[in-house]
Amino acid sequence: MKEFQLIEHFFNRRGQTRRDVELGIGDDCALVQVAANKSIAISCDTLVENVHFYADIPPQALGYKSLAVNLSDLASMGAEPAWMTLALTLPDVDETWLEQFSSGLFDAAEYYGVSLIGGDTTRGPRSISITINGLVPTGTALTRSGAKNGDWIYVTGTLGDSALGLDVIRGNRRVDVEYNEYLINRHYYPTPRVLAGQALRNLASSAIDLSDGLAADILHVLKRSEVGAVIDVDLLPLSQAVKDSVSELEALNYALSGGEDYELLFTVPEAQKGALDTALAHACVEFTQVGQVTSDKQLRLIRNGEPFNLTNIGFEHFS
Amino acid sequence: MKEFQLIEHFFNRRGQTRRDVELGIGDDCALVQVAANKSIAISCDTLVENVHFYADIPPQALGYKSLAVNLSDLASMGAEPAWMTLALTLPDVDETWLEQFSSGLFDAAEYYGVSLIGGDTTRGPRSISITINGLVPTGTALTRSGAKNGDWIYVTGTLGDSALGLDVIRGNRRVDVEYNEYLINRHYYPTPRVLAGQALRNLASSAIDLSDGLAADILHVLKRSEVGAVIDVDLLPLSQAVKDSVSELEALNYALSGGEDYELLFTVPEAQKGALDTALAHACVEFTQVGQVTSDKQLRLIRNGEPFNLTNIGFEHFS
Repeated sequence: MKEFQLIEHFFNRRGQTRRDVELGIGDDCALVQVAANKSIAISCDTLVENVHFYADIPPQALGYKSLAVNLSDLASMGAEPAWMTLALTLPDVDETWLEQFSSGLFDAAEYYGVSLIGGDTTRGPRSISITINGLVPTGTALTRSGAKNGDWIYVTGTLGDSALGLDVIRGNRRVDVEYNEYLINRHYYPTPRVLAGQALRNLASSAIDLSDGLAADILHVLKRSEVGAVIDVDLLPLSQAVKDSVSELEALNYALSGGEDYELLFTVPEAQKGALDTALAHACVEFTQVGQVTSDKQLRLIRNGEPFNLTNIGFEHFS
Repeated sequence: MKEFQLIEHFFNRRGQTRRDVELGIGDDCALVQVAANKSIAISCDTLVENVHFYADIPPQALGYKSLAVNLSDLASMGAEPAWMTLALTLPDVDETWLEQFSSGLFDAAEYYGVSLIGGDTTRGPRSISITINGLVPTGTALTRSGAKNGDWIYVTGTLGDSALGLDVIRGNRRVDVEYNEYLINRHYYPTPRVLAGQALRNLASSAIDLSDGLAADILHVLKRSEVGAVIDVDLLPLSQAVKDSVSELEALNYALSGGEDYELLFTVPEAQKGALDTALAHACVEFTQVGQVTSDKQLRLIRNGEPFNLTNIGFEHFS
């Protein structure tokens, strides 16, 4: 048997079926329908043990996060979540683990309206690969390639919390007890900015989600859009937890290169700036202007009005 | 960086882009469009080293087969292949391996008209997970659940070649030199019956692809269709290679429980029987009637008109 029936039990017992799912789990393929004038946004992310997560991650957090990082890709395109397939590789059948993992996965799936329509469970070193499908009115998807000279650059939420949270989890940092849970949760339970992404359709000129850190991820936008940017690092939004726990330079390091924040970075033309507040009012997320798109195809950082060099904070991958 | 750029080079250099792909690899999601009145068939299969394949499989065969087993799921639904995402986990960056693996993958992708629209490459124990998307006119997909009492049961091609081929590869069997390459190729390069599946729409009452062996896979059809079946094992189509290489009972074992043939098993109502020849004429595949659907919710095998018990041939998983 290529699939363990015991495992499938955990993934068949929960999760709503969307009306656009003709046929769910249990046949050779699932069948889904797409409304006219919608395009499908498709993305695939894999999490491998000891590469993307440690063996001591709570299974519930792993289940939640596996879907959340995929939802974040949909968010950055302005797509509405729809269906997913799950390729789960496990070293053994541990019912407690499966109970908790599937519980975290379905918590996220139900909150964001995603139907699990297929999957494959295999024995091997633990990894989770999800392919997510979302829907977006044709022609309105946000991409990395639309930023124009003069557009304003924004990010949602606060930056660096997830990376500091990971350091707290690993015992590399100690923080005040009042921030402990917040930071750990920002690492284990990132919030994909799904509503914000949809609200930015017809408004933002480009968008990307921050998985590797702002300093690395913004380069994808600049390259695809053939533009440059200036970022004022004094404007980077930091949580009270980060500000109170580490030095200013350390905070900038977390914010610029920490990764796994799963916030959105997006660009907005001057003419659309005034519409942002209204558009994002229902998305329940703060957003902060951090810089501006330039024509010179360079990324420049400034701090206190002076050029700021990332190597100051030990950033290596920058190029 | 969560993705290795070097690896991506191998997967960006080939492969056509279908007209229904608005945006391919390179953004947070791909974007695709679906014609009105089409449903999307979606399936996901993972191959893990030392579970589904051995480390000595030629990388080209692995690339081909990873896609072929997914195409076989589309075939069994009568769907036309369209797009895929690839989650590839590799222990290291071996350029020769990547060259050959991607070559085999794209050979299959180009032959069957599949666009690679996304993926994720991660470091870890070698595994390949593909999510395939196909298109089928809404309401015409073949499923496991439509078989009716009295329908005739057919299989495409010949059965048992792949399993005997694996035994040849592993050195567990020696066969006449003239059959060696044929059998090994049937294991490494199975033919997904994509055209046959599409030809069976509006004609077959149910279908499934044979991945675990007929005796196991037919049970999925019987369960979902709430019927039984009688299979005349004397009718099972065997290649000359199988017939000449092993005993009659061994041949039945390979044919019934060997697995990985990726042929289609399908059921056809009496009234449609006459239309089969014409429908399958362009699918370039033989097909053989091997039994009939019954109302008693049991699977019965007969040989020379007598009941035939699978335990005779060491079959264990049968229930």
